[in-house]
Amino acid sequence: MAITDSISVSTKGRRDVLDITPDLCAIVKKHGIGSGIVVVFVPGSTAALTTIEYEPGLKKDIDVYLDRLFPYGEPYHHHETWHDDNGSSHLQAAMLGPSITIPVVEGKLTLGTWQQVVLIDCDTRPRNRQLVVQMLV
Amino acid sequence: MAITDSISVSTKGRRDVLDITPDLCAIVKKHGIGSGIVVVFVPGSTAALTTIEYEPGLKKDIDVYLDRLFPYGEPYHHHETWHDDNGSSHLQAAMLGPSITIPVVEGKLTLGTWQQVVLIDCDTRPRNRQLVVQMLV
Amino acid sequence: MAITDSISVSTKGRRDVLDITPDLCAIVKKHGIGSGIVVVFVPGSTAALTTIEYEPGLKKDIDVYLDRLFPYGEPYHHHETWHDDNGSSHLQAAMLGPSITIPVVEGKLTLGTWQQVVLIDCDTRPRNRQLVVQMLV
Repeated sequence: MAITDSISVSTKGRRDVLDITPDLCAIVKKHGIGSGIVVVFVPGSTAALTTIEYEPGLKKDIDVYLDRLFPYGEPYHHHETWHDDNGSSHLQAAMLGPSITIPVVEGKLTLGTWQQVVLIDCDTRPRNRQLVVQMLV
Repeated sequence: MAITDSISVSTKGRRDVLDITPDLCAIVKKHGIGSGIVVVFVPGSTAALTTIEYEPGLKKDIDVYLDRLFPYGEPYHHHETWHDDNGSSHLQAAMLGPSITIPVVEGKLTLGTWQQVVLIDCDTRPRNRQLVVQMLV
Repeated sequence: MAITDSISVSTKGRRDVLDITPDLCAIVKKHGIGSGIVVVFVPGSTAALTTIEYEPGLKKDIDVYLDRLFPYGEPYHHHETWHDDNGSSHLQAAMLGPSITIPVVEGKLTLGTWQQVVLIDCDTRPRNRQLVVQMLV
């Protein structure tokens, strides 16, 4: 059986990293999920989901190293299509991926103690994002 | 309940990017999926699945930047094992990942307007790929 | 219906690559899964799951190229937070991702012939890892 919910967040863009773990835990509790999986999906092609230890130093490292792999100022072919500036954002998001799947066991997400589910918004401007949370039990 | 289908594609290799969204939408419709998830999985270790805005500029950027991260011509240890030339393909595919999971809500994949599900074939030669589409409702 | 099992492994850290496919196949068989999905998830933020052709050359390539993208010896901001040395491990694991989802069709994981499910432990020291295996049928 599938149960759908959502999480709305406002981001600053430019590899802003947001911890959505408290929202996810609240949703799992609200729907009384005992055993199953939670799929989180971000519509849009310039944001991504993964897990990290959510602490300020690592947030900066993600910013620095994603920009190093796909630098903001380079002449992406994507810019020729739309005359915009977010080619790097698209590549960063595609590499990280738009979804994450987490088991729920005995009513809890099976995350490690220092492991949080994060949205990384790679776009070059602030964005509002509505994440889809799909639970299967 | 699990329902299985598949998508067959022919690729050119060398980071050929194929939009499989129309095929996925048709499969979801064909099986009358109302609410659930779709898991797409590519058997083989030199191709991957993610989402991008499917437009010609970004397809070129994916080619350029994946090759920059894991360049074709370097002396990979993998080549010593099989005396072939696709070590870069294996690393590109492993980094992107072989599967993607997308929620289905009210009969529709929850993709953004400019977000398509793509197969990226990183192998060094043309390949035929049969993707597994597993739906859970 | 969700069925939970687990896989325990000991790793050497430093991008140690372990083939967990035999364990997964045994779990699928043990629980008599005919059709569904298997979600494997690694608790902790310095290890990741993906698929590769599991052979010694590629294991070395993964070590070399992950270290090239996020080198061990650089001054990560994460080190300022905890005065440890594994900032590179966190970035490598976040990029690869902590979970993988694989269809099961007619009692078998839909892997390619030369495709294995691997845990990559990016931490800087040996670790014991207990992976969560969540099956949905």
